[in-house]
Amino acid sequence: MPTLVLGKNDIRPLLTMPDTIKAVEQAFIDCVEGRAIMPPKSYVAVEQGDFRAMPAALPGAAGIKWVNVHPKNSSRGLPTVMAVLIYSDPATGYPLAVMDATDITAYRTGATAAIASKYLARKGSRTLGIIGAGRQAQTQLLAHVEVFDFKLIRVFDRYRETAERFVKAFPAYPVKAATLEEAAASDIVCTVTPAREPVLMKTMIIPGTHINAIGADAEGKEELEPSILNDSVVVVDDLRQARASGEINVPISKKLYRVNQVYATLGEIIAGKKKGRSDDRSVTIFDSTGVAIEDIAVARVIYEKAKERGGYTSVNLVDG
Amino acid sequence: MPTLVLGKNDIRPLLTMPDTIKAVEQAFIDCVEGRAIMPPKSYVAVEQGDFRAMPAALPGAAGIKWVNVHPKNSSRGLPTVMAVLIYSDPATGYPLAVMDATDITAYRTGATAAIASKYLARKGSRTLGIIGAGRQAQTQLLAHVEVFDFKLIRVFDRYRETAERFVKAFPAYPVKAATLEEAAASDIVCTVTPAREPVLMKTMIIPGTHINAIGADAEGKEELEPSILNDSVVVVDDLRQARASGEINVPISKKLYRVNQVYATLGEIIAGKKKGRSDDRSVTIFDSTGVAIEDIAVARVIYEKAKERGGYTSVNLVDG
Repeated sequence: MPTLVLGKNDIRPLLTMPDTIKAVEQAFIDCVEGRAIMPPKSYVAVEQGDFRAMPAALPGAAGIKWVNVHPKNSSRGLPTVMAVLIYSDPATGYPLAVMDATDITAYRTGATAAIASKYLARKGSRTLGIIGAGRQAQTQLLAHVEVFDFKLIRVFDRYRETAERFVKAFPAYPVKAATLEEAAASDIVCTVTPAREPVLMKTMIIPGTHINAIGADAEGKEELEPSILNDSVVVVDDLRQARASGEINVPISKKLYRVNQVYATLGEIIAGKKKGRSDDRSVTIFDSTGVAIEDIAVARVIYEKAKERGGYTSVNLVDG
Repeated sequence: MPTLVLGKNDIRPLLTMPDTIKAVEQAFIDCVEGRAIMPPKSYVAVEQGDFRAMPAALPGAAGIKWVNVHPKNSSRGLPTVMAVLIYSDPATGYPLAVMDATDITAYRTGATAAIASKYLARKGSRTLGIIGAGRQAQTQLLAHVEVFDFKLIRVFDRYRETAERFVKAFPAYPVKAATLEEAAASDIVCTVTPAREPVLMKTMIIPGTHINAIGADAEGKEELEPSILNDSVVVVDDLRQARASGEINVPISKKLYRVNQVYATLGEIIAGKKKGRSDDRSVTIFDSTGVAIEDIAVARVIYEKAKERGGYTSVNLVDG
């Protein structure tokens, strides 16, 4: 039995946002109901960057994502982040596919935030603010428009041309370049920056906002003024990862926030074990660090589609 | 830049035992001298077996091995253990190759034991005893004959025909099927069984023996009567792994052995930080659990050879 090899150009046409949202939502339910196995991410720090190993198993699916973060890569003409995923049959361990997971990572991150917004943002949210207009911002937009009907999407980037390029990339949606303050004063705000100091301040946000804090995914990174956390309902994807590397990591280390102030995990909210938004004035925050069940769930969709369509490269990888 | 895809049939001709021994020995030196990064293995236990994620970085090399253990696979005509390795450039994170690592795993396990024997067995050891004649036993033989000049290699298996098949597979060496007691009374003894209860008893071994305890690699597995450990010089590949899943794990959990009785790591011995064998009557034991630096070191050799030879399958895996 050969192993499918799916490169970046194979993955793109197989990856859709509605599929991704559906798969990720189910993965969180599986996890909270005890049907997933997910050890913590391992980090391998090297001189120029780091690697992260993200293994997980879900019902009928298992695998590992191996993803790097090398900040100086752009000077060499390479992406900062590249991800490869080995997708295995949990019943036999057989490696069914090896696939690019760079776009899968971007899609599942957007999908997870949109799922959080679905459960935590005010019903009828009509404005979306995106702070940081880089690569990950695109899938925030693509995922949120699947769930909400926005009349205005405001995009801020510290480089005006980056925001303008983003606007041009999405002519089908009501996207406008905006100031930080304008973007922050939205019903749903996604922070998608590499910041190591707060960008979003408490005075900028409106009552009832839902914030997806996406950027902080490593120790020392933060995007939100810590006082926002203290007066908000904070939901995390994974508590252990969030306290170590998520938005709450710096405030916790500075004793400005306590881990027991976290209200729930996203899985608990989706599965109905904890209530979502309770009123129209609370500020809610989803602290996203990215978890392997998201990747494996999307890899399964990709693998099943590729198997059905056929015609992809396959190799006798572990067969003799 | 495409990614090389090296299947099992590509790997076999590129894999040699002298290369493997050299690469693994250097990897242990790199590790003990602080030039390697290796987080602990992660386990993903599923219904029919488990997966292990083994990431590591060495100077100029990084990657992850993803390996399963599914004991019921033979009834489906599949190997129990299959391994896939992603080999990455540590300077950029680029996935240079995806390769079968099933044979790499067997070779590096044999090589590591032979390296341990080189430092711990008596000079002039002339007899090798192999207990358990399965797949991993083959590379114990292939590695040890690179380091020692044996006049007799005795092989025991609880299934006589397995031992005889092993003998027939190595006509070039002085291999004989033997009883357990005969195999145990050798200068160097390798235990390579899936045992969960001691197989090698203290009364069976001779003074000055060196034992490579290979089989125990998961909680609950053991091959040696614990009293052998108490009167021996015990060396481990990785202390954290050994106490959790190596030969010492069961004796420690039963309070028959204490972790602080371990004398050294193999890296400390190779690098000269701790002395090897001190006299001709001590019993020495190498407790092998298998560590990711071994795999990544061998993967580097394979990758470099494959790149030089050319003609292998390559795919635009993360390239767009």
